[in-house]
Amino acid sequence: MDDPVKLRDTFPTNMGIRMKIYRLQKIGSINGLALCEEPTPQPGPGEVLINIKATSLNFRDLSIISGQSPFPLEEGRVQLSDAAGIVEAVGTGVTRFAVGDRVVNNFMPGWHSGSFREFTPQYGTQLDGWMAEYRAVDQNELVAIPDSISFEDAATLPCAAVTGWNAVAGVGPQHSVLTQGSGGVSLFALQFAKARGAKVIATTSSAEKAQRLLALGADHVINYAENPNWGEQAKALTDGRGVDRVVEVGGPGTFAQSLKAVALSGQVSMVGVLAQGEMPSYLEMFLTFARFQTIVTGNRQDLQDVIAAVAQNRIRPVIDSRFSFDDGKAAFEHFGKRNLFGKVVITNER
Amino acid sequence: MDDPVKLRDTFPTNMGIRMKIYRLQKIGSINGLALCEEPTPQPGPGEVLINIKATSLNFRDLSIISGQSPFPLEEGRVQLSDAAGIVEAVGTGVTRFAVGDRVVNNFMPGWHSGSFREFTPQYGTQLDGWMAEYRAVDQNELVAIPDSISFEDAATLPCAAVTGWNAVAGVGPQHSVLTQGSGGVSLFALQFAKARGAKVIATTSSAEKAQRLLALGADHVINYAENPNWGEQAKALTDGRGVDRVVEVGGPGTFAQSLKAVALSGQVSMVGVLAQGEMPSYLEMFLTFARFQTIVTGNRQDLQDVIAAVAQNRIRPVIDSRFSFDDGKAAFEHFGKRNLFGKVVITNER
Amino acid sequence: MDDPVKLRDTFPTNMGIRMKIYRLQKIGSINGLALCEEPTPQPGPGEVLINIKATSLNFRDLSIISGQSPFPLEEGRVQLSDAAGIVEAVGTGVTRFAVGDRVVNNFMPGWHSGSFREFTPQYGTQLDGWMAEYRAVDQNELVAIPDSISFEDAATLPCAAVTGWNAVAGVGPQHSVLTQGSGGVSLFALQFAKARGAKVIATTSSAEKAQRLLALGADHVINYAENPNWGEQAKALTDGRGVDRVVEVGGPGTFAQSLKAVALSGQVSMVGVLAQGEMPSYLEMFLTFARFQTIVTGNRQDLQDVIAAVAQNRIRPVIDSRFSFDDGKAAFEHFGKRNLFGKVVITNER
Amino acid sequence: MDDPVKLRDTFPTNMGIRMKIYRLQKIGSINGLALCEEPTPQPGPGEVLINIKATSLNFRDLSIISGQSPFPLEEGRVQLSDAAGIVEAVGTGVTRFAVGDRVVNNFMPGWHSGSFREFTPQYGTQLDGWMAEYRAVDQNELVAIPDSISFEDAATLPCAAVTGWNAVAGVGPQHSVLTQGSGGVSLFALQFAKARGAKVIATTSSAEKAQRLLALGADHVINYAENPNWGEQAKALTDGRGVDRVVEVGGPGTFAQSLKAVALSGQVSMVGVLAQGEMPSYLEMFLTFARFQTIVTGNRQDLQDVIAAVAQNRIRPVIDSRFSFDDGKAAFEHFGKRNLFGKVVITNER
Repeated sequence: MDDPVKLRDTFPTNMGIRMKIYRLQKIGSINGLALCEEPTPQPGPGEVLINIKATSLNFRDLSIISGQSPFPLEEGRVQLSDAAGIVEAVGTGVTRFAVGDRVVNNFMPGWHSGSFREFTPQYGTQLDGWMAEYRAVDQNELVAIPDSISFEDAATLPCAAVTGWNAVAGVGPQHSVLTQGSGGVSLFALQFAKARGAKVIATTSSAEKAQRLLALGADHVINYAENPNWGEQAKALTDGRGVDRVVEVGGPGTFAQSLKAVALSGQVSMVGVLAQGEMPSYLEMFLTFARFQTIVTGNRQDLQDVIAAVAQNRIRPVIDSRFSFDDGKAAFEHFGKRNLFGKVVITNER
Repeated sequence: MDDPVKLRDTFPTNMGIRMKIYRLQKIGSINGLALCEEPTPQPGPGEVLINIKATSLNFRDLSIISGQSPFPLEEGRVQLSDAAGIVEAVGTGVTRFAVGDRVVNNFMPGWHSGSFREFTPQYGTQLDGWMAEYRAVDQNELVAIPDSISFEDAATLPCAAVTGWNAVAGVGPQHSVLTQGSGGVSLFALQFAKARGAKVIATTSSAEKAQRLLALGADHVINYAENPNWGEQAKALTDGRGVDRVVEVGGPGTFAQSLKAVALSGQVSMVGVLAQGEMPSYLEMFLTFARFQTIVTGNRQDLQDVIAAVAQNRIRPVIDSRFSFDDGKAAFEHFGKRNLFGKVVITNER
Repeated sequence: MDDPVKLRDTFPTNMGIRMKIYRLQKIGSINGLALCEEPTPQPGPGEVLINIKATSLNFRDLSIISGQSPFPLEEGRVQLSDAAGIVEAVGTGVTRFAVGDRVVNNFMPGWHSGSFREFTPQYGTQLDGWMAEYRAVDQNELVAIPDSISFEDAATLPCAAVTGWNAVAGVGPQHSVLTQGSGGVSLFALQFAKARGAKVIATTSSAEKAQRLLALGADHVINYAENPNWGEQAKALTDGRGVDRVVEVGGPGTFAQSLKAVALSGQVSMVGVLAQGEMPSYLEMFLTFARFQTIVTGNRQDLQDVIAAVAQNRIRPVIDSRFSFDDGKAAFEHFGKRNLFGKVVITNER
Repeated sequence: MDDPVKLRDTFPTNMGIRMKIYRLQKIGSINGLALCEEPTPQPGPGEVLINIKATSLNFRDLSIISGQSPFPLEEGRVQLSDAAGIVEAVGTGVTRFAVGDRVVNNFMPGWHSGSFREFTPQYGTQLDGWMAEYRAVDQNELVAIPDSISFEDAATLPCAAVTGWNAVAGVGPQHSVLTQGSGGVSLFALQFAKARGAKVIATTSSAEKAQRLLALGADHVINYAENPNWGEQAKALTDGRGVDRVVEVGGPGTFAQSLKAVALSGQVSMVGVLAQGEMPSYLEMFLTFARFQTIVTGNRQDLQDVIAAVAQNRIRPVIDSRFSFDDGKAAFEHFGKRNLFGKVVITNER
């Protein structure tokens, strides 16, 4: 017989009883999210049961809920891809974690290291995500977090921080980096670029956000509302050489300026598609003599590196706002307004 | 006093006398090329005088002559960027070459190794090129060629072979490569990809060229005239995984199919802009999760590597046709018809 | 309830009945290997049962049996790390393979891609290996093989071919490679280096083996018995520049010559420790201005790449000799004589 | 005719008159250095005349003077490889610099970018170095420095900072780095590793230096005099995983401990050979499963990167002590005592 599931001392109050969980009953709007009650799951062989303490929102979540994600969607799925919590119980054969461990989840199930080579079912689309009080998950989809990182901070890391991290991979103290706006990925890219010693040029359309970007370490902030030709301004701020790394989150709406900003042999990290606009031509892309690298978030090893970097450099993820679990729909509504400075977090207070 | 210029034994017949040289007297058409006579140049300090034996044509030459190059043009410039010949005399301070050495020129003056970081005057635009009987050039702009490589073959290497080489850089025997058509870069990319052990899928619109591509080593040939959706066909030929490396020479006209062909985490090497067509969207680019790498020909070290690879693997550059120096304009006219299989070479027979 | 184990049509004759298996009952000599009978295992959740068709021997197996491995050893373990066979049955939750699939095993359990970061129990030391008629194993420890690769050939790949592959990683048609002797790793390194277009210089002490090395594609063969200063001879064969990659299998006994052979900025791939001798000094290592890269076999992705490269380039692994399963001890005795040309294979004929 | 040499306004007082210069008249000891007077040189074609403001000493200088350098030595050579100063005059054809520019010299003449591929005559051995009031040098051997970097600080960069930079190349905020002692390279490696966000473990034998290392940013300092097994202590400080990068300056005397400290798949950057001791075996090297990378200082592009990194991160090179030009021999004597904390600088005050 298999070993019985090992339970945490404080656990019996929940095991077997019911937990709260949101399911996207109808794709199309935030109202499709329904707060349900279900039995707390039991960890199967090789699985771990997580008592979820915090989750965070990403742009992808909105595009799933609104039905605009390019990936196959299924109604009824639990949303949210990023969570942190405590190991509440472990199934048979679990070797990587013990009850009581503090953990955060890997964003891309099954992608643990190496290059991205195949699509697997993703949280929120073909796999239940983390907008719940508990979730059982394969032990290989988790990474430990040190005590110095809070659950709320940890919950911001799986998607946005890993993406920002890979967007500035390889950057060093001799380089310059351009970030756009104040969404989660952009702020992480800024913080990681500064941790790497780079010069950072950030953009925003708000004087108040400009101050906050400078406070986060940006060396220069450009107000793109005041200067639509901000790509050339960024280039000028590098003595005309161009920025070594552009973290492109706008896509069609910002790409033309990014092409003006990037240095010869530099890189445009293609992260997002947030802004409308007219695309430059193939020739304009080509004449930058740069590299255009799509960024697919990242793998479990990247998440471990992010956690090491955050802990070592005492990076504080920027949290725009916090919502309680019961106010989960309000979190999405706030996120949907898109006037953010950092991450939106849901805290499972119990 | 500086040492006098060292002369080759057979040289006195030319030194100081007049040589033939083509100058682009009027930008706009091939008729702007004028065959002139000028004094044979004398090598200055650090310079080498080359008795040019062969040159080759590239697409960039046509775009200069027609005035459609994106780079600044100057009337009166000598055209052609690629040449091979014999060192006829060396100026003071020359250490890298001796009279009688067989050499080929570096395509990008001043770029010897490392990343591409600055534009310098190019042959044919702001600097005289090689469509002449002699040219004096800085010793650092030349690379030695072994006896096993003929002058004609060597003259095909500086631009097209180096570009094809860098387009498949890093490819190995576990990879698949897609090449487009039968221009110089594409055929070199095919040959270098085969030398690297990769599987090669080539495209063409002609059954006869398909045979020649197979004879060169292509594992599969797709007739894109018969199958406009050749990107998906290429992907199918890799068991559905996608090709690891696309050598994109068409640009706007082929890019959409290349996006369908490329593997996750693969690379599209952006080499040329030869074909008209509708560009895919930013999102379509992004969803490949690939890398888009512009290829700027390459540096002198790349040329040395190309020469080593060509010699070691006994690669025979594919020469579409040969013209005599006096028929230089005919070479351009033939090249301009664009129905080529390999390189067009001009041989300076004397 | 879990799905029942799916059985192959031809299977019932073996399932539940007894199979033959060798266990290393006593560490110290080949005589410690005992041929036993045990029940055929049943695949657990996520596991696959393999009908083993062929295995191969590696130097590490000998060092385990003789008790000289640097890794922790356990008596009673099944030996051999490399096997190929057919999926005979799959346990619940298996998604990667189906009954009838042809497979080969990953050498390092748990290392699937990315850098080597932790030691896990290895086959033959702390984990049962493959010297048996059947073995059940986690589905993630297997890779599919195409029909064009025989079981015997496939069984040579997990350790020796992957090691040879990684020893020449990054080598291209512009490079030169030095291999030592005719063991499994060295011959694979030779074959992969040739598939990559490199020039190969091989060493041997036998005129007869020299012929076989040339037949495999070596460009030059040095008889090190005749020329103890073979490192300088190898360097001379590269026009004095030095070899770009040395595949060092001898260790202390050959390292000094390898240092003489390697090019500035070249790499010595540290693979083995087979030969006795005097080590050069730290300064002699340093003054090569080379890189010394230890090679830890490789991961599952490397094995997949090897299989793709072998299939694409129709590489035939060199098999020194074949033994039947019942003659397993004779295979080890033959292997122990060390006068090999390629791999020693055990074929499970039934 | 060539353009005449362009002179700086303040220059006429020196041009053509005599300058002070040290020559190593006799190899073997510091007393071999003779302070001479010679005509100020005139810049030839492509050359720049530097008014030298500061120089710095490196271990290599001592090994040349004592005759223990492994490179060919010539008596009479001017010593020192590192200098900063002002462009006083430019020869014909100079395009990279103008009179009045602030510059520092490239350490390895002729190595401007890419891999190290050939030995060229070095300063102090086969080429006159910089221990003088003026030196004319090819314009390609210089790099501009911004106003924010003083001449003294700049003079510390060409050898030690570039070496330290390359020793930690690729390190990021997720990594740990081990530095040894308080010589120039080690302190630069510490500073660059911190600028890259890494955790740094430094070693020293002095409590007072330990405080200074902590003040420079070291996260941990190990007193190796108190703990001869400091390699294991360093490993323990990384949660037992091992340090990702060891900057090895001791060589034989420290290598065995470095092997204990380094992480699986980590790198030992082989920089120096300063300490006596017993070398570990080949097998001990191999079983680290690490990479051993020799560091050959670096090229001009590396120096440019160092200058960008120093300026961007406001790094202050650590200067142990300053000597006047007339006290040049005292600088060497102080340096020879080897009880340093940072660089020894000679300031050409006039």
